[in-house]
Amino acid sequence: MPELDFWYSIGSTYSYLTVMRITDAAARAGVSVRWRPFNVRHVMTVQNNIPFKDKPEKTAYMWRDIERRAQRYGFHPRLPAPYPLAELVLANQVAALGAAEGWGQAYTQAAYRCWFEAGQPAGADPNLTASLEAAGQDPARAVAEAQSDPVVQALAKATEEAMALGIFGAPSFAVSGEIFWGDDRLEDALLWAQERS
Amino acid sequence: MPELDFWYSIGSTYSYLTVMRITDAAARAGVSVRWRPFNVRHVMTVQNNIPFKDKPEKTAYMWRDIERRAQRYGFHPRLPAPYPLAELVLANQVAALGAAEGWGQAYTQAAYRCWFEAGQPAGADPNLTASLEAAGQDPARAVAEAQSDPVVQALAKATEEAMALGIFGAPSFAVSGEIFWGDDRLEDALLWAQERS
Repeated sequence: MPELDFWYSIGSTYSYLTVMRITDAAARAGVSVRWRPFNVRHVMTVQNNIPFKDKPEKTAYMWRDIERRAQRYGFHPRLPAPYPLAELVLANQVAALGAAEGWGQAYTQAAYRCWFEAGQPAGADPNLTASLEAAGQDPARAVAEAQSDPVVQALAKATEEAMALGIFGAPSFAVSGEIFWGDDRLEDALLWAQERS
Repeated sequence: MPELDFWYSIGSTYSYLTVMRITDAAARAGVSVRWRPFNVRHVMTVQNNIPFKDKPEKTAYMWRDIERRAQRYGFHPRLPAPYPLAELVLANQVAALGAAEGWGQAYTQAAYRCWFEAGQPAGADPNLTASLEAAGQDPARAVAEAQSDPVVQALAKATEEAMALGIFGAPSFAVSGEIFWGDDRLEDALLWAQERS
């Protein structure tokens, strides 16, 4: 089966659309998806790529654009969602633990639903506890483990790997060395995976 | 017939894709297009929105993304094209004159073909003369007229109008007060126009 790496950070706004739809879209395309959390804030800070800070016109457009596209996909976010996330790092450390233990996708989808549909920032309670329970995990155990040195290092290593691939934002899709950036490139990435399998 | 305003600046890289395909795409959708040149560099400078300067990763991705999408559309650019344009303002003053006189589309398409397919920067010779001749104009007359006060003012006024609409980049599409940004939103904009006509 063709494969695609889905590079995301909980904290990225457009990743909401992808997190909600990639499972169905990839299944229809017959493409296998690996969920790869990384720290996009670190990448963007290093690269001096800060697209929304102090840019009210672009930020207003971003929310409206997500709203319109969510409607087309049949999702019902309450926008604008709280942004930026204070606890982006912890949210993604938990995702990194989940990726290693096999519950990363379930946690991420729950975290985005709480964040975008109930207005609860990811990486903090009540979102954190609810999303971990939705993924079948004990919140106290997972939150402690997510801040342990091996998980902190795993997220840092994934972030370095993303940068080495040429990734500069989220969501991004990596297929056979090609990078596609943005929820609106998901179809291009799936087609690329199909054509090269 | 439903209508769409196509806001562009000669100088925008992704506008190449739109300039090359909007006529056919809009005809298929049954939507009428008004070509609206403006000075996107002024808008982005005012809004401190400089997406590619000193961002080599993002810039490299942009060229590769344009290349892949151009291939899908059947276009054959030589990339990277010369960028940024030294003569962006003059290129768009000429487009503003063309918009007023009815040859703006023909000039813009020729200018982008010379720029992206023959490596000749728009707004300067040999591109400028060739594009004006392709649009059936006398180059000397048009270049002089394009720098006259009324045309300079018309471009400045169009730029203010774009900003008032919430436009922050190019290409953008305006349909019934809705703004869509990016060549990849052309289909969304055409659908919006069809649904609200």
